[in-house]
Amino acid sequence: MTILQQLQHKINNKTKPIGALGQLEHMAIQLGCIQHTLTPQVTKPHIVVFAADHGIAAHGVVNPYPQAVTAQMVLNFVQGGAAINVLCKHNHIALTVVDAGVNYDFDPALPIIHNKVAKGTQDYTQAHAMSQLQVTECLTKGAAIVQDIYHTGCNTIGFGEMGIGNTSSAALIMHHYTGLPLQACVGKGTGANATQLQAKLQALQAAAAYHKLTTPHTPHHIMERVGGYELVMMAGAYLKAYELGMAIVVDGFIATAALLLAIHTHEPTQPISAHSALLANCIYAHTSNEQGHTQMLEYISAIPLLQLGMRLGEGTGAALAIPLLFNACAILEHMASFDSAGVSQASA
Amino acid sequence: MTILQQLQHKINNKTKPIGALGQLEHMAIQLGCIQHTLTPQVTKPHIVVFAADHGIAAHGVVNPYPQAVTAQMVLNFVQGGAAINVLCKHNHIALTVVDAGVNYDFDPALPIIHNKVAKGTQDYTQAHAMSQLQVTECLTKGAAIVQDIYHTGCNTIGFGEMGIGNTSSAALIMHHYTGLPLQACVGKGTGANATQLQAKLQALQAAAAYHKLTTPHTPHHIMERVGGYELVMMAGAYLKAYELGMAIVVDGFIATAALLLAIHTHEPTQPISAHSALLANCIYAHTSNEQGHTQMLEYISAIPLLQLGMRLGEGTGAALAIPLLFNACAILEHMASFDSAGVSQASA
Repeated sequence: MTILQQLQHKINNKTKPIGALGQLEHMAIQLGCIQHTLTPQVTKPHIVVFAADHGIAAHGVVNPYPQAVTAQMVLNFVQGGAAINVLCKHNHIALTVVDAGVNYDFDPALPIIHNKVAKGTQDYTQAHAMSQLQVTECLTKGAAIVQDIYHTGCNTIGFGEMGIGNTSSAALIMHHYTGLPLQACVGKGTGANATQLQAKLQALQAAAAYHKLTTPHTPHHIMERVGGYELVMMAGAYLKAYELGMAIVVDGFIATAALLLAIHTHEPTQPISAHSALLANCIYAHTSNEQGHTQMLEYISAIPLLQLGMRLGEGTGAALAIPLLFNACAILEHMASFDSAGVSQASA
Repeated sequence: MTILQQLQHKINNKTKPIGALGQLEHMAIQLGCIQHTLTPQVTKPHIVVFAADHGIAAHGVVNPYPQAVTAQMVLNFVQGGAAINVLCKHNHIALTVVDAGVNYDFDPALPIIHNKVAKGTQDYTQAHAMSQLQVTECLTKGAAIVQDIYHTGCNTIGFGEMGIGNTSSAALIMHHYTGLPLQACVGKGTGANATQLQAKLQALQAAAAYHKLTTPHTPHHIMERVGGYELVMMAGAYLKAYELGMAIVVDGFIATAALLLAIHTHEPTQPISAHSALLANCIYAHTSNEQGHTQMLEYISAIPLLQLGMRLGEGTGAALAIPLLFNACAILEHMASFDSAGVSQASA
């Protein structure tokens, strides 16, 4: 029997109707397959939050919050006051914050990873967001962070982000890969009103035309043209986490857009599909309320765990999903079988 | 300001866009309202599993598993091998198992609550399931259990059930109250195949006609006619939990059917509505995969937290939802405000 068959057999013999624990069973089996064991465990779960600024956000056209909020929120992370701090602490998840390219000079003594590529990307409505060298720098730095965390004994990782304006990058990436009209990809972000949303859409339509996003591009070109530093660093992190055989908890709209970059970097000659090797390690935390996320998830045939109407980013969805993974492992390890408990099975 | 307004104000000033934590915010506010405090807490959460047998299940027409499984699963609960044991233990939730009327003589030394009303109900295809005296006995015993648990310091409670055949009682209760055709209320239960489902539907159509379920009945009459002991005892438990001001975590299909009994017992002269006082204390754990649960939840305008494709009962959905309540309280208590963190707010 393959490991998949052995896991299915093990869970089918637990004292419950076949399949009655739904996605809890799927998760247990997936984790068993990732870890090649009948007793998968979540060890030292970790969330990495990548923060960066976006040239386009300096205008205030795509973002109701000022760009300064990116840096302010990094300081809030350091002080432990943000939602992701509270959720990680409560759920015993380690948290690492990365300055991937915030437009602010942080005190070097601050307990974050100082990976600043530059103080924000270029405005991609009239230039490339970053250089090819910066793309490579981001991918390399993202991979190195995951490598270090892996060496602490972590086997389950989630990625979050903070970057005023980054739903715009994510929407453009989604538009390019899914082929869906930009209108289906652009949402309210942190809470744009109708007028702001219209302005955001127009700015992004101009950017999409400028970069010819409806034509083919290599993943590196997409990252160069419309990426954010936090998105590309996250893509590098996904790739390394997959390479190391870690379980990857995918957060919301922006984290899923970064996953698209990682998938296409990993298998550039393939059209994307639910069979992409990298996706075997991905567990989808939740459906964000950001419009576009549902269709982005459908594009990779992802079935998310939670639908709590959240749209915050930071990895908050991942932080709420990781406890479910622990529960799935506990079910697989500790539930009695029909035989061991002396419980009768169903008639055919 | 009312407590609701104060809670809304408090959460709106947390460092996140308004409403960005979705249902986590709603939960925090609801718990604050239930507990009349700006710092709600979940203390000593507890799940009570009511077990009982059903006369109709002796035929094997409505249930793919033999009736003996009810008792076998109670023994499995005692040994700690069932899904609800694993989930309660993992999530630090206390668990109490109640023999409400299992068709088996348990050793009196067994650490369960020995509340057996009788060894299974009568077959309601040709009789009343129980007497009016038994209805009262169930309601009283259910209330007493909750009263005792409340005195341990518990302020958050969930109810589960085990009873081969009990999706049939639940379907008849749903049919009576919602007015939906029986076909929309009857599902596969523990896993009936198409032939078994057809036989189940036919048996329940006969029962619905015999008891004239499309005509008005008092809640006590409905309980007497088609109730299970576990369902009616759970209804008594709901009523007491509400009276004591506890937060009530509502599990799946059967637990929601018992909630309908409780609502109608509490406000017999009212048509059911989302404004029923009792519902203010209810948090809906999940949407079960048992067909009918979605529409039953819609009937009371309930928005469940989880959609994990589960259909096991035992209170397993509640056990997975209770950790979310802890997270909601943590957010309300520990997140920084815009002022305290020095984070800029959004433009209007």
